[in-house]
Amino acid sequence: MDKIPILKMGEFLLVTIQVDLYDRLALALENDLINMVSKTEARGVLIDISAVSIVDSFMGRILGNIASMSKIMDAETVVVGMQPAVAITLVELGLTLTGVYTALDVEKGMELLRNKIGYQPKEEEDLYDDFI
Amino acid sequence: MDKIPILKMGEFLLVTIQVDLYDRLALALENDLINMVSKTEARGVLIDISAVSIVDSFMGRILGNIASMSKIMDAETVVVGMQPAVAITLVELGLTLTGVYTALDVEKGMELLRNKIGYQPKEEEDLYDDFI
Repeated sequence: MDKIPILKMGEFLLVTIQVDLYDRLALALENDLINMVSKTEARGVLIDISAVSIVDSFMGRILGNIASMSKIMDAETVVVGMQPAVAITLVELGLTLTGVYTALDVEKGMELLRNKIGYQPKEEEDLYDDFI
Repeated sequence: MDKIPILKMGEFLLVTIQVDLYDRLALALENDLINMVSKTEARGVLIDISAVSIVDSFMGRILGNIASMSKIMDAETVVVGMQPAVAITLVELGLTLTGVYTALDVEKGMELLRNKIGYQPKEEEDLYDDFI
């Protein structure tokens, strides 16, 4: 399994990172994701890293790259599900995830994305709340 | 990374299987998933296997187990994203995914789940379509 699946959820894309990213896999992910953004006209990309226990400078760069590329394609990127220990390590290592938004979980990430892209529910706010 | 993350999406749970399931991992997934269904009162479980290139009898049994357990907890299970080659192999091997519904992708899986649980949009059907 040398491919990270990208799931389309409405106007957003969802990627769950469960395996250690190595060079080729990371490049493939960047490539697939950008193509998918272009193909589906997605407005946002959610990257779930809840299974990731270490974010090193390589992974930080990949996340930054994805965010920059998506931004050019008019899609915002939100990293969700970061473990507390990962956040601690990031700060201790002095790493910053440039251009990457973060949210606690997928639902909050979607909420954030909707705000970022200026999403307007068609009619009632409470209806919108029902769908994640 | 010895844990498969379970994402909460509204009233459904989403699991993306990207690594080969071995005994301990599969048991942990079953356990986590059932606990999560209980905790979040989820009505449906979506299992994305688009990254899985082989579904053998072990994996088939795990999927069946998850479906049966979820069913007892009043949640339906839909397997989504199956590769065509996997479907061919399943039939050739004579394996049946008992009690498991399938759908082409996550969005169609959610649609199916909503139908299964008798989901009724509050007001307008077109509003509902907007949210995945």
